[in-house]
Order: sequence, then C-alpha cells, then structure tokens
Amino acid sequence: MTTKTVPVVQEIMSANDSLAEQNRERLDAAGLLGINIMASPGAGKTSVILRTIDALKDTLRLGVVEGDTAAVTIDADKVIGAGMPAVQINTGGQCHLDAVMLARALPALPLDELDLLIVENVGNLICPASFNLGTHANVVIASVPEGDDKPYKYPNIYRGIDALILNKIDLLPYIDFDEAYFRQGIEALNPGVAFFTISCKTGEGVSEWIDWLQKRIV
Amino acid sequence: MTTKTVPVVQEIMSANDSLAEQNRERLDAAGLLGINIMASPGAGKTSVILRTIDALKDTLRLGVVEGDTAAVTIDADKVIGAGMPAVQINTGGQCHLDAVMLARALPALPLDELDLLIVENVGNLICPASFNLGTHANVVIASVPEGDDKPYKYPNIYRGIDALILNKIDLLPYIDFDEAYFRQGIEALNPGVAFFTISCKTGEGVSEWIDWLQKRIV
Repeated sequence: MTTKTVPVVQEIMSANDSLAEQNRERLDAAGLLGINIMASPGAGKTSVILRTIDALKDTLRLGVVEGDTAAVTIDADKVIGAGMPAVQINTGGQCHLDAVMLARALPALPLDELDLLIVENVGNLICPASFNLGTHANVVIASVPEGDDKPYKYPNIYRGIDALILNKIDLLPYIDFDEAYFRQGIEALNPGVAFFTISCKTGEGVSEWIDWLQKRIV
Repeated sequence: MTTKTVPVVQEIMSANDSLAEQNRERLDAAGLLGINIMASPGAGKTSVILRTIDALKDTLRLGVVEGDTAAVTIDADKVIGAGMPAVQINTGGQCHLDAVMLARALPALPLDELDLLIVENVGNLICPASFNLGTHANVVIASVPEGDDKPYKYPNIYRGIDALILNKIDLLPYIDFDEAYFRQGIEALNPGVAFFTISCKTGEGVSEWIDWLQKRIV
C-alpha cells in the first residue's frame, strides 16, 4: 500500500504549496495581512476572533474565513453578527483546510477593502499543521482545560508557528495545569515563539495579542 | 487529482474493514470485550481509563492500547503505573488509529488473560470516526469546556457510537454550557445512545458508566 499512496500524497502536497503561493500573492496584492488560526475543537478560536474584531473594529476592517466540517454556520453567523464579512468553507467532513479550499473562498470576500483576513481552520490539533494556506502567519490557540501535556503529545502543530495563545486562563483556579511545564514544551519545539496568556471570557491578556497583531498589520 | 486518489482511498478503507474483522475475531477468541475511545485532545480519555481501571481492578483484568502521534509514553506510563498492561501505538504524526495499527499492537498484550481491552484513539474529533478497528463498542468522550455546540459542528464522530461520556461536569459552574442543547444535538445524530455525565476529578457519575461497561463484559 505504501508504494502506491506516497507518490500521490507528495503530489497533493506540492500542488497545495504552489496554490498557497498564489493565495499569498493575492493577499499581498490586496495589501492585507492573512493569519491562519489552528486549535483543538473548543479551544476558543471563534472567541479569539470575536475579541479581535471587538478590539480593532473602529480602526481596521477584518474578514473571516470559517472552516467547518459540516454545513452549520454557527461561527460565521457570529462574525457577521459582529459586523464583519465572513465566508464559510464546508470541508464536507475533511479534517483540515488546504490551499485549494482557501483559494476558492477568497473571491467571496471584499479583499481590497480589508486590512486583516483571519482564517479559522477546522478544529484539529494534527492535520491542519501539514497544509500551508499561504497566510502570512500561523497561530495556535491552546486552552487550559486541554491540559499542560499537549505540546509533548501533539508536537507537530506547535513547530513553525508565529504565535501561541493560551486561552481560558480564567479556569486556572479549577484545573491542574502547570504553566511552566506547558511553556517548556512549547519552547523546546519553537524557541522564542510569541506567547500570550488570555481569557476571552474576562478579556485578560487580550490587549497584548492585539498589540502583536497590529504591529504586523502596519 | 480526484480520479487518482479516490480508488486508493477506497482500497485502504476496504483493507481496513477486513483487518478490523480479523481484529474482532482475535478479541472474540480471547473472550474479551474491546472498546475504542475517541475524543478531542484533552477531553479526558486517559482520565476515564484510569477511573475505569480503579473501579474494576479488583474483579477484572484490563489492557490498554494507547494511540499517540508522538513517541512520548505519558499515557501508557499512567496505565502501567495503575497496574495494568499497556502498549503504545506511535502513529508517527498520523491523525487516527486504523485496524492495521491495532492488529500489530495486539500481540504485545496478554489477550487471553484480559477481560476488557480499551483502545485510546488519537485525540481528534474527526478522522478516527472513519476507521473501524474491530472493537465491540465505540465510545466518545466530550468535555464541558469544549462547548455545547460540538455535536452540530463535528457530527460524524457521534453517529453510530455506543456511548457518549460528557466529562468535566465539575466545571459546569464556571462555563457557559447548555446541557439540553448539547444532548439535543447528540440525540439528533444518534437517538437513544447511552449518555453519561461524569467528572473524573470528583468521581461523580463514574459508577453509571462502570455499570454499563460491566453489563457488556459479562
């Protein structure tokens, strides 16, 4: 089986990379920053996006691409409810977004009017790491209830990312979570990566994330 | 690309199903119950397994297969620490277990001495749903911090499972989680599925899960 499937997978990967390059050119031509947000289901991707919209809505224009495995538009509806354009990619059960899907979704957004494009990947701590989308930055959101051992168990997704957001720190009093152990795991995989501890519920720490983001947009 | 990849995938799927049948025969020959536990990263798969071991250790013999994407043996070490045999499948970055991997792992356990085999799948709410392992029952563990909308967003994994465990109910006072909405989503996908609300931290609700499991073993 191996001799048959590997060449096909390689072909898919290189096709993905060349389409990712085209996506990047398209974002650059529109003069916007594109970021790809990856996380486990329920880590708070949409909550971080809504906090980001709330912080930036008076000065910048954001657009969001929502990756979902099913047709429900729960997350896209929230973004639209917050006053920003959103488009959903329904992957039809697929476990990640790829550059082809993003290329197809981009024309549905008014790219030339945007300053920032946020892509919310499918909730999955494994597969999205393998597919370059062409965005300028990759961000992983971890959350306190997931546990402090995740960098050790799911290392690939933390490699090569530009920022790590640890969300749900409001739950720290109720959960055994060793932040030093977690950070040590992240540092071993990705030394010096930007690291933010936040609570989307209380708003704690959100401004540091926004500062980092704004510096990249300007 | 589609015409090239689809036949290969179908071939893999049917090869998987026939190996899953062989796994089932092997478990039946050893006279044990095999269950496959699936969940998001950090939902509490290992914690449920440790609670299960603790509840049954005086009357039954358990073995555990730990599916991990990396070489770290954090979970397997915990099972062995609890006095039961465990074997790790390192998927090498792969996002799910399949029947081939399980077939290779089974000889490392003393199957004839066991009453119950628990397979802890890779932490992923999407891909494991597509691969029959040959176990007698499939169980999904959800957790309160993941959010009440997961059945609507990741429907495939809840279809056809035999039991759903909602873990971390000790966190309900601190999180907006509408249990009725969550249950409604599960019921729509899988009417009448066995449903357990538990806290591995406090032990609440664990005995109902153990009762259900014991009835299947005897």
